[in-house]
Amino acid sequence: MKRKFLHGGDYNPEQWLEHPEILKKDLELFKKAKINTVTLGVFSWSVLEPEEGHYDFGWLENIMNTLHQEEIRVILATPSGARPKWLADKYPEVLRVGEDRRRSLFGGRHNHCYTSPIYREKVEAINEALSRQFGQHPAVKMWHISNEYGGECHCELCQNAFRTWLKERYQSIEKLNEQWCTTFWSHRYQDFDQIESPSSIGEMGLHGLNLNWRRFVTSQTKDFMEHEIRGIKKGGSTLPTTTNLMYSFTDVNYDELAKSIDMVSWDSYPLWHKREDVEVAIDTGFWHDYMRSLKNKPFLLMESCPTSTNWQSVSKLKKPGLLEAASLQGIGHGADSVLYFQMRQSRGSFEKFHGAVIDHSGRDDTRVFKEVCKIGQDLENISQVSMGTTVAQVALVYDVENRWAIEDAKGPRNQGMGYMELLLKIYRSLKGKGLNVDIISSSRDITGYSLVVLPMLYLLREHFAIQIEEYVKNGGTILQTYWSGVVDEDDLCYLGDGPHMLTDVLGVRRKEIDGLYDWEENWFQPINGGIFKKTYQCKRLCELVEVGSAEILMNYQDDFYQGEAAVTRNDYGQGQAYYVAADVAENFYDDLFDYIIEEKKIKRLVDGKIPEEITVDSRVKEGTEYVFVQNYSKEEQDISRLKLEGELLLGESITEIKGYETVVIKR
Amino acid sequence: MKRKFLHGGDYNPEQWLEHPEILKKDLELFKKAKINTVTLGVFSWSVLEPEEGHYDFGWLENIMNTLHQEEIRVILATPSGARPKWLADKYPEVLRVGEDRRRSLFGGRHNHCYTSPIYREKVEAINEALSRQFGQHPAVKMWHISNEYGGECHCELCQNAFRTWLKERYQSIEKLNEQWCTTFWSHRYQDFDQIESPSSIGEMGLHGLNLNWRRFVTSQTKDFMEHEIRGIKKGGSTLPTTTNLMYSFTDVNYDELAKSIDMVSWDSYPLWHKREDVEVAIDTGFWHDYMRSLKNKPFLLMESCPTSTNWQSVSKLKKPGLLEAASLQGIGHGADSVLYFQMRQSRGSFEKFHGAVIDHSGRDDTRVFKEVCKIGQDLENISQVSMGTTVAQVALVYDVENRWAIEDAKGPRNQGMGYMELLLKIYRSLKGKGLNVDIISSSRDITGYSLVVLPMLYLLREHFAIQIEEYVKNGGTILQTYWSGVVDEDDLCYLGDGPHMLTDVLGVRRKEIDGLYDWEENWFQPINGGIFKKTYQCKRLCELVEVGSAEILMNYQDDFYQGEAAVTRNDYGQGQAYYVAADVAENFYDDLFDYIIEEKKIKRLVDGKIPEEITVDSRVKEGTEYVFVQNYSKEEQDISRLKLEGELLLGESITEIKGYETVVIKR
Amino acid sequence: MKRKFLHGGDYNPEQWLEHPEILKKDLELFKKAKINTVTLGVFSWSVLEPEEGHYDFGWLENIMNTLHQEEIRVILATPSGARPKWLADKYPEVLRVGEDRRRSLFGGRHNHCYTSPIYREKVEAINEALSRQFGQHPAVKMWHISNEYGGECHCELCQNAFRTWLKERYQSIEKLNEQWCTTFWSHRYQDFDQIESPSSIGEMGLHGLNLNWRRFVTSQTKDFMEHEIRGIKKGGSTLPTTTNLMYSFTDVNYDELAKSIDMVSWDSYPLWHKREDVEVAIDTGFWHDYMRSLKNKPFLLMESCPTSTNWQSVSKLKKPGLLEAASLQGIGHGADSVLYFQMRQSRGSFEKFHGAVIDHSGRDDTRVFKEVCKIGQDLENISQVSMGTTVAQVALVYDVENRWAIEDAKGPRNQGMGYMELLLKIYRSLKGKGLNVDIISSSRDITGYSLVVLPMLYLLREHFAIQIEEYVKNGGTILQTYWSGVVDEDDLCYLGDGPHMLTDVLGVRRKEIDGLYDWEENWFQPINGGIFKKTYQCKRLCELVEVGSAEILMNYQDDFYQGEAAVTRNDYGQGQAYYVAADVAENFYDDLFDYIIEEKKIKRLVDGKIPEEITVDSRVKEGTEYVFVQNYSKEEQDISRLKLEGELLLGESITEIKGYETVVIKR
Repeated sequence: MKRKFLHGGDYNPEQWLEHPEILKKDLELFKKAKINTVTLGVFSWSVLEPEEGHYDFGWLENIMNTLHQEEIRVILATPSGARPKWLADKYPEVLRVGEDRRRSLFGGRHNHCYTSPIYREKVEAINEALSRQFGQHPAVKMWHISNEYGGECHCELCQNAFRTWLKERYQSIEKLNEQWCTTFWSHRYQDFDQIESPSSIGEMGLHGLNLNWRRFVTSQTKDFMEHEIRGIKKGGSTLPTTTNLMYSFTDVNYDELAKSIDMVSWDSYPLWHKREDVEVAIDTGFWHDYMRSLKNKPFLLMESCPTSTNWQSVSKLKKPGLLEAASLQGIGHGADSVLYFQMRQSRGSFEKFHGAVIDHSGRDDTRVFKEVCKIGQDLENISQVSMGTTVAQVALVYDVENRWAIEDAKGPRNQGMGYMELLLKIYRSLKGKGLNVDIISSSRDITGYSLVVLPMLYLLREHFAIQIEEYVKNGGTILQTYWSGVVDEDDLCYLGDGPHMLTDVLGVRRKEIDGLYDWEENWFQPINGGIFKKTYQCKRLCELVEVGSAEILMNYQDDFYQGEAAVTRNDYGQGQAYYVAADVAENFYDDLFDYIIEEKKIKRLVDGKIPEEITVDSRVKEGTEYVFVQNYSKEEQDISRLKLEGELLLGESITEIKGYETVVIKR
Repeated sequence: MKRKFLHGGDYNPEQWLEHPEILKKDLELFKKAKINTVTLGVFSWSVLEPEEGHYDFGWLENIMNTLHQEEIRVILATPSGARPKWLADKYPEVLRVGEDRRRSLFGGRHNHCYTSPIYREKVEAINEALSRQFGQHPAVKMWHISNEYGGECHCELCQNAFRTWLKERYQSIEKLNEQWCTTFWSHRYQDFDQIESPSSIGEMGLHGLNLNWRRFVTSQTKDFMEHEIRGIKKGGSTLPTTTNLMYSFTDVNYDELAKSIDMVSWDSYPLWHKREDVEVAIDTGFWHDYMRSLKNKPFLLMESCPTSTNWQSVSKLKKPGLLEAASLQGIGHGADSVLYFQMRQSRGSFEKFHGAVIDHSGRDDTRVFKEVCKIGQDLENISQVSMGTTVAQVALVYDVENRWAIEDAKGPRNQGMGYMELLLKIYRSLKGKGLNVDIISSSRDITGYSLVVLPMLYLLREHFAIQIEEYVKNGGTILQTYWSGVVDEDDLCYLGDGPHMLTDVLGVRRKEIDGLYDWEENWFQPINGGIFKKTYQCKRLCELVEVGSAEILMNYQDDFYQGEAAVTRNDYGQGQAYYVAADVAENFYDDLFDYIIEEKKIKRLVDGKIPEEITVDSRVKEGTEYVFVQNYSKEEQDISRLKLEGELLLGESITEIKGYETVVIKR
Repeated sequence: MKRKFLHGGDYNPEQWLEHPEILKKDLELFKKAKINTVTLGVFSWSVLEPEEGHYDFGWLENIMNTLHQEEIRVILATPSGARPKWLADKYPEVLRVGEDRRRSLFGGRHNHCYTSPIYREKVEAINEALSRQFGQHPAVKMWHISNEYGGECHCELCQNAFRTWLKERYQSIEKLNEQWCTTFWSHRYQDFDQIESPSSIGEMGLHGLNLNWRRFVTSQTKDFMEHEIRGIKKGGSTLPTTTNLMYSFTDVNYDELAKSIDMVSWDSYPLWHKREDVEVAIDTGFWHDYMRSLKNKPFLLMESCPTSTNWQSVSKLKKPGLLEAASLQGIGHGADSVLYFQMRQSRGSFEKFHGAVIDHSGRDDTRVFKEVCKIGQDLENISQVSMGTTVAQVALVYDVENRWAIEDAKGPRNQGMGYMELLLKIYRSLKGKGLNVDIISSSRDITGYSLVVLPMLYLLREHFAIQIEEYVKNGGTILQTYWSGVVDEDDLCYLGDGPHMLTDVLGVRRKEIDGLYDWEENWFQPINGGIFKKTYQCKRLCELVEVGSAEILMNYQDDFYQGEAAVTRNDYGQGQAYYVAADVAENFYDDLFDYIIEEKKIKRLVDGKIPEEITVDSRVKEGTEYVFVQNYSKEEQDISRLKLEGELLLGESITEIKGYETVVIKR
C-alpha cells in the first residue's frame, strides 16, 4: 500500500450489529469519501467480553475482513477506556475514589483506578487476546492504547503506591519534610506512611505535596499504559502504538506519556466561530505544534469533528469550508492524518448529537458528507507531503510542571496568573512573522535554536538554568519574562536574588512583583534613543527589577515605579538575554521580534507582512519545502505581497486566496 | 350551603393552642373578611400523633366544631408532607437518600422515601384514623393529600422498585439495552439487577436511564398518593380529593398525578413587580390554563400570598390592588377559589415572614387585611360564575416528558434550549388575540381544536405523530417548530428523515440545526408577494430545512444559509401545516396568528386590538358567557375599542378600566 | 524596661534551625528595624513535640535566650492552632466533622474538635509544659492563646455537648419547642436527645436552632480557650493572656471570648488599593474601634502585612508610605503595638508569598524593610502615647448575635439585607464629623453616651429595650432604624406592634416593609419648614410606619407609599428618639448628625469640615490629648481649616499634610 495520509476516524459498528443494512451502507459511503482508515474498538469492551472471561471477537473479525477487502486500514483500540458493568459490580476496587475519598459508582467512562491489580489483570488479558487475534490481521496497522487517559484515583491502593513512589524520590522523610517545608503549619511527617494525597477535606495547601501528587498521577498513568502495551506484546503484536492526547490538558504530563508510545496522536476540538476564526486557528496551531514537538516528528490528528459538537455550551455548525481548512491546518503543522470522531452518529446516549460523517438521516447528500469527500480528494492531491518534517529556529518553552506550580501557588494573582495567555500571545506574534515554532518543555535540549523564549519560568530546575546560561554564552538569544526562577522542582522558593542562577545572564534581579486588578493597567514607555518608539499597555503583573549589567530598553510610565526598568537586554558571552518585566500587550512582542529576527537573521517562510487572517506553515520532505497558506476569513484576500513562488499542489493562485481556502506550494 | 367560590386558606391553629385568645380573634377576623374555607392539618403530624401510635385529635375536633358553627368549611390535609422527629429517629429508612447515595438527616419537609413500607404504613394508619374521625364531620368538604409532592429518593428500596418497574416496561434486558443504546461507552446491562439510578458520582449521561428514572419517580409518587387515598377510603370517607401542584414543576409529571385525584389545585406564587406586571400575569395565566387543562374543568387556587413572600431574593410588597387582580385572574382562568397561604403568620421558623391575612401585629386595619375583605366581597358579587367552564379553540402542546428530554439532551445549545421561553412567547401572542387557550400534553386528544401549536416537539411518540397526521388530513391546522420529531419515547434518535413521520404533513425535512450564541442573531425576511411584509429577528437555534411540497413563506437573511427557507406552509388533506424553522421573535407569531385566525375563522373574545397591559379571559356557565377584563398597569386605560357589551358584575365601566381593576361582564 | 509600643511580629525560627546563619542574620536585621517584640510558637507543635509525649524545647530556649540578650520581648503562643500528624493519626476524634457529618482528614490548620477530651488533654499537657519551662523566662511577656479561633465541629461529642448546653438553657423541651416554634413543619422534639446540629443534609431553616448553635459554638470555643489557659496556670505562669481576633468574623461572638482574656488583640488585613484608600481606612478604623471597645481599653495589633498578602484574588504591593499610615492608624484607634505577620517569609507551603519584613532575598535594602525601620523610629517618637485611652461620646451598636439572626432569617431581602453596609455608612458619617466612636454590642451599658445609634436592631432583648427607654427618658438621644425590635433572643417574632417595646419611645409603629431590587430606588423628600432641605436616595428596604406622637421630618417621594413618613423624631422624657425608616444614602446621615451634634453639644476633635481623604482620631493619657491626623491620598492636602494646635510629635506641619502622612499633635 502506497504511503499516504490517513483519512477516516472512529467507527463503532458494534452499535449496529442488528442492522446489517447500515453496516453495508457505511462501506459504500466510506468509499465515496475516500476513507482509508478507521479506528475500531474504542469503548467496545462490553461487546468484546460480554461475560467475564468469555470473549466474543467474531463480529470484529467480520468487520475487519470486510474493511480489508475495501482497502481500509484499521487502528485497533484497547478497550480500557470504559469497563463493562459486570467488572465494576464484581470488583468494586476498579472504581475510582475521588479526592474527597468517596468511591464512584459505575458510570461515564475513564473512571478506573490505574493501580488496581484486578483492573490491570483484566486489561492485560483482553489486550493480549486482541493482540493474539488481530495482531497479524492485514488490516490492522496500529494500536490505539485506551482513550484520552486522564483523571486520578485516591483509593488506598493508590495511596500506598504514592507513598512508595515518594520514598523512592526522597529516600528519607527528613529530606521530604525539608523540600516540602512541612514545618509550616506543623505538618511534619515522621514516616512516609503518614502521607495522604491532597484532598479538599484534608490537605490542599502543601504545594510540594500537590505538585508531586501530579507527578505521581502521571507516573502511574504512564505505568498503566505501559502495562497495557505489555499485554499487546505478550499477544505477539509488534505494531506501533499511540494514545490520543488532548487540548491544554493538565491531568498528566504528556512529555512523560509520549516517551512510551511510538507516535503521538491527539483529539482536536476547537470552538470554531466562538471567537474570530483566525484566533481559534492560532490557538489550535499552538497545540498542533506542541503535539508535534513532543517527539519532534509527524503526529496523527486522531479525532476531529466533521460539524458541530454536542458538549459545548452552544454547538455551532461549521461554516462551509471551515472543516477543510481545519483539517489541512493539522497537515500543515505536521499531522499525517485527518481522522474524525465519528464515522456514524450513535442513536442514543451522551453523544448522540455529536457531529459525524454519516448522520441519523443516513444520507450521502448532506453538506457535511460532501465536505468530507472534498477533503478525501485534497489529501490525495498532497499525498507527497506525508511524513514530511517541520524545521523551526525558534523554541517556545511550555512546561506542564511549571503550569501546575504556577496555578497551585497562592501568589500575586490567584484570579488568573495568565500563563497560558502569555504563551499564546507570544506564539501568535511569532507565527505572524512567518516562523515555524517548536513548543518544548524545560526538560528538552535547547541548543541549535536561534531564539528560545522562556515565559514565566516560575519553576526552574537548576540544570535547565545551567543549560540556559551555556546557551546564551555560546551565542544563543533568550527572551525571559517576569515571574521566572522563583521555585525549585518541589515548589520551594529559592533564597537570595532571582531569577535564580540567571541574574548574571539577564543582568537584572527581581525586587518585588505587583498584582494588578483586571481594571488596572500600566504602560511601557520608550527610552530616548532606544530601539522602541511606541508605548505598550501592560496588565496583570508588573515586576520591579534592579538593573545590573543590562541595558534598559523601556521603563514604566505609571504608579510608584514610574521610570523603573520594564524591558532590558543583556549581552552575555556571545549571546543576548532580553528580559520583559510585565505582562505587556502583544504589539510589544511584534516589535521586539522584528528586531530580534533582523539581529539574528532568522529565516521567515514568506516575505512581507502576513495579513492578519492568513496563516503560514511549512513542512520539508527530502529537501523539498511545502508551504501551507490558509485564509481564516470568509472573504478572498490578496496575498501577493507574500511573494510566494513554486508549484501549486492545492489552491488556484499564489496571489489571491479565497475564504477558508488552503494553498499548498511546493518549492 | 349555596355553591360559591371558596375564600380562605392554610390555617395552622396548632401553633396557637396555648393562646386561646388568638384563636378566638382569628374567627372574628375570618368573618370580617368573608372567609368561608380553611385548610387544616398541613404539617400537623407531630401534634396529631405526638408519640408513636398515640393520636391526639381533640384539639382539631374543637377547632373544626367552632369553624362549623361559623359556617367555615374545612379542607383537611393528610399530614405526610412532614414527618415527626420520632418517626425519623426510630425508622431511618423513611429518610431520603440523595442521588449521591447519602441518606439525609431529619429536617425541612417533603423529605421522605416514597417507597419505604414503614412510611407507607404509618401514613396509611394516620390517614385512616383521620378519615374515621373527621370523614363525616359536616365542616369537612375535601381531602388535601399531603403537600406539594416532589423530590426523589435513591435508597436501596427505591433502586429495587425502579428495577421492577423497568422489568415491567421492557420485559427483557436486551430490549432495554437497545432502547437506551447502552453499547455506547460499553454500558450494556446483563440483568435488570445491575441497573442503578442516575447519580453525579455514577451515571449521568445515559438519557434513556435519566428519562425513565423521571417516569419512575412520577409513578412511585403517584402510587404513594394512591396509597394515601386508600387509607382515607379505609377510614370510610368518600369526600373528593385534591393535591396541591406547583408552578413550572418538573420533578413529577402532573398529567399522571391528575388522574388519581378528583380536582386539581395549585399553589401560585408569581414574582410580581420583578418584571412588568402584565408579563407576570401572562406567565401566571399560562400555568392557570395548564392546571385547568389537566382535567379540563374548574380547579382550585390552593395557595397564594396576600402580600410579600419571604423566600424570594427580594420580597416586594404587592402594590395596592394587585392582590385583587391576581386573585380574580385565577377565577377568570377557571379557578373556583381564592385561597391564601397563610391565614395567620407563624411566629418562628422558616416562613415567619411569609405574608399572611393576619400578621404578627394581629390587627384588622392593615392594608392587606382590608384588601382581603374586598376580595371576599368581589367573590360574592360574581358567585354565579363558579363552576363555569372554559371553552378554547386553540391548544398549545406542553409536555413535561418532552421537557425532561430536551433539558437532559446534550445538543445544539446546552446553555438554554429555550423550550419554556418559546411556549410562553406563543402563549402570550395567542392571548393577545383574545383567545382562550388549552395547555395540553401530547398524550391528549387534539381533535376538535381549530389550531394546535406544537413547539419543539423533540420527543415525539409515534401514535401522536399519527394523530397529528389524521388531524391535519381532516382539516386541522398545526403550527410546528424546529427541533421536533427527533427522538422516540426513550430518547433514542429516529433514523431517516425528520421530523419523524411528519415530513409529508409538513412538506419539509430537517437538514441541520445551528446553535447561536446569546450575542448572535439572524433574521427572517419576507418572500416577494408572500403573506409577510416585515423582517423578524431570530435567536438561539436556526434549523436548515429542505423544502418538499411546502410553500416557502419566509427565508433567512444572514449567514451561510441566507435565502434558505425559514417558514413554510403545506396544504395536506383538508388542513394546513405551518413550519417555523427558528426561534423567531414574538412579533412574527403576532402576524402569523392574525393570518391563521382569519383563515380559520377562529372566534375572538373581543373585537379590536387588545391594549398591551390588558388581559381578557372568559368562562361559560349554562350558556352564559362571563368575560374577565383585567388591567395590569397602574394607570386607567381606555378599552372602548374592545366594544364590550353586557351586564357589569364587577367594575364600573365597559369603556375605561382603572389601574389593577378587573371588569367582569355577563353576556 | 521602659513602657513603649511593641514593634515586631510572628517569627518562626523553627523553619530555619538547619540554617544558623539565617537565624543570626535575623537578629541583625531586627535590631536595625527597632524590633522589640516577636511572637513565637504559633504552629510549632510538631517541632515542640515531635513524638507523642516527647517534648523538645531546647531550640526554643536557645532562641529566647538570644532574643533576651538583644532586649527583644517574646509573646509566646500555645501551639493548638495546628496539631501534629501523629496526633490526628492516633486519635481521629480530634479531627473535625463537618455540618454534612463527614470527618475531615488531616490538613490545613484550625481544624480540631473543641470538645474532644483527648485534644483537650494533649493541649493542656503541652501548655502546662510550656508554662513550666518558659513562664518565668525574662523574655516572655504574654501568652498568645492558640491562633485565630474559629470553625465548628459536628461530631457526636459535640452533638452531646450541644444537647447538654440546650438543656441548661431551656430546662424543658416544651420551653424549647415553644421558643423555636417547632410546631411549624412538624418539627417538635420530645426530648433533648433528639436534637441535631444544623446541616445542609438535615435541618437548615429552624432559626432558633441555628442561632443557638452559633451561641453554643461560641460557648464551646470559649470553654476550650479557658481550658488552654488553665493549662498555663497549672504550669505556674501568671502572665497576661490574649488571643488574636479577626476582621468581621462571625464564627464566634467575640464579646464572649474577650471576657476570658486579659487583653484583646487582632489581625488586620485590609484590602488596600482595591477601593479608594480612605474607604479602606474607614472600614479598618471600624474594626479597630470594635476591638478597642470589647474591653474599652488599649489593644494589640497582633498581625498586619508589611507588603502584599498572598491569599487575595489580587495581591497588590502597598504603595510607599501606606504601611506607615496603616500601622499608625491602629495606634490612633487605641492599639499599643505594630506587629507584622511575618518576620521572615517561609520558603514553602501555603504562605510562601505572604509579605514579610525579611523576604526570600534576605536583603536589608528592600523597600519594605526600610519602611519597617521608619515605623520603628516613629513608634519611639510617640512612645508617650502608649497606654493612652480613647474617649467617645457616641456609641454605635453592632451586635454579632443580631447579625447572625439577620443573615439567617428569610425575609424581605435574602440577597443582601445590608446590615454591615448600614453600620459602615453610619460610622463613616460619624468619623467625618471628627468624633471618636465606640462600637458596642447590645449587652453593654449605654448610659453616659450623648448619642446611641441603633441600626437594624432586629434581634432585640427585652432588657435592652428597657435600657433604651430609660436612657432616652433620662435625656439620651437615640437614632434607631428600620427592621428593629422584630424578634426576641430566640429569633421568635414579637406579637403586637413593633419595634417591640419601643413604639412609645419612638412615637411610631411599623406597618409593612418593602424589599427593593438592586435596580430600584426611592427618595426621602423634605417636609416644608422642617430641618431637612434636600432629597436623599434610599435603596434595599423601605419600611412603612404609622406615626403616633412623633414629628415627621421627611417622607417618601415615590411608589404607593409616597408622602408617608420616612424620618421621624420623638421627644420622650428628657431625650429624643430619631427613627429612619429606610436604607437612605450616607449624605442624609451627614446632615442629620450635624443637627444632632449641634443640638446635643457633642464635642468634635477638630473644627471645620474634615477633607474627604483625611481621618482624625485621638487618645488621652494623663489628661493630655494626642490627636492623630492622617492623609489617605497620595497628594499633599491643606488641613489649615481644621485649626489644629499643639506640639507636633510626628509630621512636619499642622497646616499641610503630605500623601500617606500621619501627623500626631499633643495638646
